[in-house]
Amino acid sequence: MASTVSQPQQYGHPPPILLTLTILPISLYLIINPLLPLLLPQSLLDNIPPKYSLQDGQSSYPALQASIGFSLLAFVGVVWLVPKVSEAFVSKGLKGRDLLKPGGRVSGPWIPESLGLPCASLYLALMMLFIPFPFSHLFKKQTPLGPETFPQQELTLYLSSLLSLLTATLLGFIDDLFDIRWRHKLPIPIVAAVPTLLVYYSVGGVTSVVLPKGIGGWLSSLGLERWLDGNVVDLGPIYYLYLILLPTFTTNSINILAGINGVEVLQALIIALSVLINDLLFLPIWSSNLLRVLGFENPQNGRVLDWAIGEVVNRHLMSFYFMGPLVGVCLGFLWHNWYPAKAFPGDTFCYFTGMAFSAVAIQGHFSKTLILFFIPQIFNFILSCPQLFGLVECPRHRLPFYDEKTNLLNPSLVTFTSPPPLRTRIVLEILSFLRLVKLEYHDPAKDANERRYIKSSTNLTIINFLLVHFGPMREDRLCILVGFVQVMGSVVAFGVRYKVGSWFYGGDRR
Amino acid sequence: MASTVSQPQQYGHPPPILLTLTILPISLYLIINPLLPLLLPQSLLDNIPPKYSLQDGQSSYPALQASIGFSLLAFVGVVWLVPKVSEAFVSKGLKGRDLLKPGGRVSGPWIPESLGLPCASLYLALMMLFIPFPFSHLFKKQTPLGPETFPQQELTLYLSSLLSLLTATLLGFIDDLFDIRWRHKLPIPIVAAVPTLLVYYSVGGVTSVVLPKGIGGWLSSLGLERWLDGNVVDLGPIYYLYLILLPTFTTNSINILAGINGVEVLQALIIALSVLINDLLFLPIWSSNLLRVLGFENPQNGRVLDWAIGEVVNRHLMSFYFMGPLVGVCLGFLWHNWYPAKAFPGDTFCYFTGMAFSAVAIQGHFSKTLILFFIPQIFNFILSCPQLFGLVECPRHRLPFYDEKTNLLNPSLVTFTSPPPLRTRIVLEILSFLRLVKLEYHDPAKDANERRYIKSSTNLTIINFLLVHFGPMREDRLCILVGFVQVMGSVVAFGVRYKVGSWFYGGDRR
Repeated sequence: MASTVSQPQQYGHPPPILLTLTILPISLYLIINPLLPLLLPQSLLDNIPPKYSLQDGQSSYPALQASIGFSLLAFVGVVWLVPKVSEAFVSKGLKGRDLLKPGGRVSGPWIPESLGLPCASLYLALMMLFIPFPFSHLFKKQTPLGPETFPQQELTLYLSSLLSLLTATLLGFIDDLFDIRWRHKLPIPIVAAVPTLLVYYSVGGVTSVVLPKGIGGWLSSLGLERWLDGNVVDLGPIYYLYLILLPTFTTNSINILAGINGVEVLQALIIALSVLINDLLFLPIWSSNLLRVLGFENPQNGRVLDWAIGEVVNRHLMSFYFMGPLVGVCLGFLWHNWYPAKAFPGDTFCYFTGMAFSAVAIQGHFSKTLILFFIPQIFNFILSCPQLFGLVECPRHRLPFYDEKTNLLNPSLVTFTSPPPLRTRIVLEILSFLRLVKLEYHDPAKDANERRYIKSSTNLTIINFLLVHFGPMREDRLCILVGFVQVMGSVVAFGVRYKVGSWFYGGDRR
Repeated sequence: MASTVSQPQQYGHPPPILLTLTILPISLYLIINPLLPLLLPQSLLDNIPPKYSLQDGQSSYPALQASIGFSLLAFVGVVWLVPKVSEAFVSKGLKGRDLLKPGGRVSGPWIPESLGLPCASLYLALMMLFIPFPFSHLFKKQTPLGPETFPQQELTLYLSSLLSLLTATLLGFIDDLFDIRWRHKLPIPIVAAVPTLLVYYSVGGVTSVVLPKGIGGWLSSLGLERWLDGNVVDLGPIYYLYLILLPTFTTNSINILAGINGVEVLQALIIALSVLINDLLFLPIWSSNLLRVLGFENPQNGRVLDWAIGEVVNRHLMSFYFMGPLVGVCLGFLWHNWYPAKAFPGDTFCYFTGMAFSAVAIQGHFSKTLILFFIPQIFNFILSCPQLFGLVECPRHRLPFYDEKTNLLNPSLVTFTSPPPLRTRIVLEILSFLRLVKLEYHDPAKDANERRYIKSSTNLTIINFLLVHFGPMREDRLCILVGFVQVMGSVVAFGVRYKVGSWFYGGDRR
């Protein structure tokens, strides 16, 4: 099972047959169940007890049920699809060697690269097949939010999100295939976001933000009250600038916290789960007491803006429809990408997941909350800045250093052949003081004329930072540790969003 | 300019600089002009004579104007983009040799393949940027169709068409890259059509067709009147089956009428132009007298169904928005694909254009008219059937035979080593009687015991049929001839649609 070198034909980890056989019928049940009232004759339906039928009204969410079914199907599908297509990818040159394994760059086995493409394709196919569930006129009667007209506007947002995702997938794959240069890569997420943003604009999207309590009064006292509407300020084009930068941030920040098996996929998984949990909080399916016990106030209360509660619920339902299958895809791909990885995600995966996060946050009006879930990525980006902006030399990959003897990963180093300039020294000393890097100094004792100077520093990534603090460890343990940091980040995010946020914004937490 | 072997670096025909410099400002003017009232302050606008401003009301089509601008931009963009990306395609193995040139399979220059991808990408990018023009609330006032609410439903149809196109592009490119087997290829257009069809279904799409005059009465007399509503019959699921098969037909029928430089692109161009002309006929911009002089009745008159004239106009406007830039893309790519071809379209191009035709026809409710524009393809398909279904041996490419001495193309032959079976003989004799193939017979004189039998037949394609009739000719002349046949097909199609159709359907020509 573990040796790939002797069996070069075997791609991917063997799919779990028992798990598949358990999940598949459940997923099909969840998908077909909401369709039953449409497929079966009425006489048969009358014999079904009401709790199995959709006609019991207020509390059933047929599309949500189907969405969970599609999520399970996404997991099973990806687990089985990835090994099937791996050989085609390797034969077309979409392959790489795992640098952190015995043999590494030289004699390690070829591992298929860019397998984000089948993941994204399956995800998109399922999301397209899902369209009739929330948006068909046949289900109109069963929505729990009272009599409504056809949710045309939501269908528009759904379709534009799919368009953005498909664009991100296509551009990501073109990037993987043709190795687009770093400079030309940066606008890719912006291009992919165009459909979402244009539709957001075309349907007259909201461009106002709620200000924290104090700021509103302070701005009024500066004579700026004509820009304000209570605590709400309309940012207009500036808001669009922010929305344009959001996908660039979500895609690239996952892409630079990479390098060890499973870490990109695990990040995406935890962020998707966080968004999913946040969405569930907004659905009217919880008792207020339960939420209070868990430390949340009921997010339904205290909203002061002019939109209907129903619209907020709908937005988070839509976000759920996107995040559920994404969780399934991430879990399924993690099966093959987990240590020792048998498949690499490629840029396609990062573009596609990053775009999914942006799209739901823009359409669901919770971009600030989304950014909170990226705390580890933001920390990693800030830590990387001295290397990204040329203060410290930046090698192409800032992978940890793999020690073949112990099979452990160690922090990797940037070494200075000559004494670094003053500004580099200051930055590194500050980071060292904050215990974010480990510096080694040239030993001045050998030559009394020479001054003591920094000989090397660990690379400025969160992965090396963890290795500095917790010592050398195996690749899978390091990945779990990064995952733990991500989970802690999400815990902090929920705290900020639902505790600190309510102090600042006075109950209105858009 | 013509020799590529000595200059292997030069990809594509040199782009036309003067033409570009002429078209570019015109296209930008057409795109920016409708935006002026939004960008300039009102005081400036008051000084502009009303004919340049949009506020003159009923007869201006700002989005149509912008669409023409985008079409010109598509032409210029493709002409310049194709040579720029050609090298990357060749270096990734997306390349082929031109079999109908000196050197051919062995020593001919490599020509980049699958360049439908940049064409489709540019087209889709332009179509996305075009979204605000017809669908923005800012333009709402200027629609010539009176006060309306935001055209949400049309935006939905527009987005789902884009989704289908993007899916077709992605799948087409995956096919080009991984060489998907013929059997797995067939459902690709169906998968790509899923978004269009599901949205069509979700918004409660029409599934009824109008029957020819006589048929309705005949069905009523058979006791089937409960399925009929006057002359209209609701086909329900059968109509969806038809809509599913439509994209399979439009994509594959262009794909099998291929093999000589420029012929796929020229077909797509002429079909796109035909759809475009048909769309223009439905816009209320013509005087009835002009139409009558041209031999058309005014398509606005005589409609008996319950939809508003405005809706029909909107549908054909939308179709125009898709077909205009498609014409631009086809013309631009033809620049490089024309004899001697410097770029090949690949399956990506056929999938993407075929899907575009299907999408507009489904959304615009003119699928029967569209099929009429495919008369040469239908003829080619029927002619090919004996080879497709194994009655006559079918080589992989049924290209004409290239004679290096004369530089002319001749009909290519299927030769029979043994006497063909009876059913093959009957089919070929019938085709020969209809002058669709040219047969050669084994000479029985040499051996009196042997019977006279068919020794060879020309391949069963429209291209070989033309060569049989008009004699050997150069590749570009043959391509022009196919184009001429396609134009004649469209002329016949218009005749059937607007003359014969009105006899059959009694003025109601959906």
